[in-house]
Amino acid sequence: MTLNIVMHPAARDRVAERLAAIDLPLCVLPLLEDGRCMANGRPKPLAEAPAEAVWLTSDMAGPSFAECLGSIAASRTVKWVQTFNAGLDHPGYRDIAAKGIRIGASSAQAVAISEYVFAHVLDLFQGLADRRAAQAAGEWKLLPFREVAGTVWLVVGYGNIGREIGRRAGAFGARVVGVRRSGAPAPHADEVCTMSELRDRLGSADVVVLCCPHSSETDRLVDAGFLAAMKHGAVLVNVARGGVVDDPALLAALDSGRVATAVLDVFEPEPLPRSSPYWAHPSVRLTGHCSFAGNGTRGRADDLFIANLPRYAAGEALVNEVDLGLYLDTLP
Amino acid sequence: MTLNIVMHPAARDRVAERLAAIDLPLCVLPLLEDGRCMANGRPKPLAEAPAEAVWLTSDMAGPSFAECLGSIAASRTVKWVQTFNAGLDHPGYRDIAAKGIRIGASSAQAVAISEYVFAHVLDLFQGLADRRAAQAAGEWKLLPFREVAGTVWLVVGYGNIGREIGRRAGAFGARVVGVRRSGAPAPHADEVCTMSELRDRLGSADVVVLCCPHSSETDRLVDAGFLAAMKHGAVLVNVARGGVVDDPALLAALDSGRVATAVLDVFEPEPLPRSSPYWAHPSVRLTGHCSFAGNGTRGRADDLFIANLPRYAAGEALVNEVDLGLYLDTLP
Repeated sequence: MTLNIVMHPAARDRVAERLAAIDLPLCVLPLLEDGRCMANGRPKPLAEAPAEAVWLTSDMAGPSFAECLGSIAASRTVKWVQTFNAGLDHPGYRDIAAKGIRIGASSAQAVAISEYVFAHVLDLFQGLADRRAAQAAGEWKLLPFREVAGTVWLVVGYGNIGREIGRRAGAFGARVVGVRRSGAPAPHADEVCTMSELRDRLGSADVVVLCCPHSSETDRLVDAGFLAAMKHGAVLVNVARGGVVDDPALLAALDSGRVATAVLDVFEPEPLPRSSPYWAHPSVRLTGHCSFAGNGTRGRADDLFIANLPRYAAGEALVNEVDLGLYLDTLP
Repeated sequence: MTLNIVMHPAARDRVAERLAAIDLPLCVLPLLEDGRCMANGRPKPLAEAPAEAVWLTSDMAGPSFAECLGSIAASRTVKWVQTFNAGLDHPGYRDIAAKGIRIGASSAQAVAISEYVFAHVLDLFQGLADRRAAQAAGEWKLLPFREVAGTVWLVVGYGNIGREIGRRAGAFGARVVGVRRSGAPAPHADEVCTMSELRDRLGSADVVVLCCPHSSETDRLVDAGFLAAMKHGAVLVNVARGGVVDDPALLAALDSGRVATAVLDVFEPEPLPRSSPYWAHPSVRLTGHCSFAGNGTRGRADDLFIANLPRYAAGEALVNEVDLGLYLDTLP
């Protein structure tokens, strides 16, 4: 049986050799820029193409993405979607999951996001702004700094991203407390606690990183009570989703100094409106959803697809496969 | 036999409990701000005090430090100096070593310096300046960045500092090549080579970190030939000593783009004169010998002294003891 699989031609070209080396009868249906795909030499709406699998990559430009997800949900043949998204907050995924189509989510961003987190925390701890200012002024100045070593990191959401953060924080000599649903031990965490134990751990954390899915459990998780429980002067980093944070509460905590600095890469809505007080707030470092955009992310996404293809064909669990029931039960 | 040991009162106060817990007959001779010390209730020049050991800490202000080293070398009783310096380039150490006085050098800076290195490399790789500019302009912008993962780090001098850098670079998924005299394997290095093999490795290194002693072997090590062998666009970090770099050659390499950016914390002389072209060079990030100044450095230096005291008393090798013969043979 030939496996018909939709993918962008650029993605196909990158993995062509590795696809050929996999002993599977495959037929690639090239994904077009308008969200349709080629089947039997003609452009067809994805929903009508005889596709069994779809590989969504960052090669596809934005506007047709929503339509593409809709077509997958409308298809009668698609059984597996491998996506470049780590978080499935796009509403299109709900319909796909509701139809029982298997979803392989992406872990390819984890390395990039962990590096983003470290760049900003080290920037803050070491006061690079003061160093730049001293250089610009021609001043030879001893500028002492705070070390990551010996600090406590609370990593809210201890999945692929959390573990990569934990790995690095551990190498820096920080204590890593991971927060995950199960509370079970996990790599690179000195301690793992559950969401219900989270509040008790906030008071000892110097750095709180949000890298959890946006779900009914994490929606507005960072509210006034959460912020009041944080250690005075802690750093909050949000690389999860904007909906995990109650914005007015965070702004109040920043104004009071409870939170020394917020590093924010995600917002609700995106793009962040020009009217948001975050833009000009002196205690906010914000970026426009960039934390995934390391130069290695696309290659790791390719690797993940190549790893999952034989697993799918063999009827095995996928690497980073979404638990559809849990996902649907905990939609925000 | 009572061990008479000179130390600053602030240092004594920090370790008082731990000193008391060590089962050794000790007499502390408090070090005064003018470089003399108290002995039998009276201030005495250190050279005339009945001191067997001297613990030099960063509590002492600068000006009396040179005199203090001179007094130690002139003493007939001192047999051990535990210092807060990692590099013994101060000329006073030469006379101390020449007299056969044992020297325990400091490894306490290593963690701080490794964090300094990472802060600057991540700042450069991720273009934090562009992120700040986008925020200031209110621009929502996808700014892709370079990852440390997959890069090659050449760590020139693979002692305490080099290993801490290696530990972190490894956790970030970089390949670590350590350069040390012996060429023997060492922790956190994927590969170790000797100084004579260094040139061959330069072409593949994305980041070159200088953290070696300044010696006859490393004086002006980074000359035109070294720089010409570097990978185009590499980053050079100097946390060793200014004398390891040939400044005109480095400036030429920065102007040509061979070296994309130099992160410089050490210079010859220090303070760096206002006339130096480094201050305003667009490809230079410079700091005034700050890389050691993490908030944990003093505590680690205290720990090292407390670890070495019973070793000295038992006639054992010290942690991080200087090889006096090698040190004297390779003075720059």
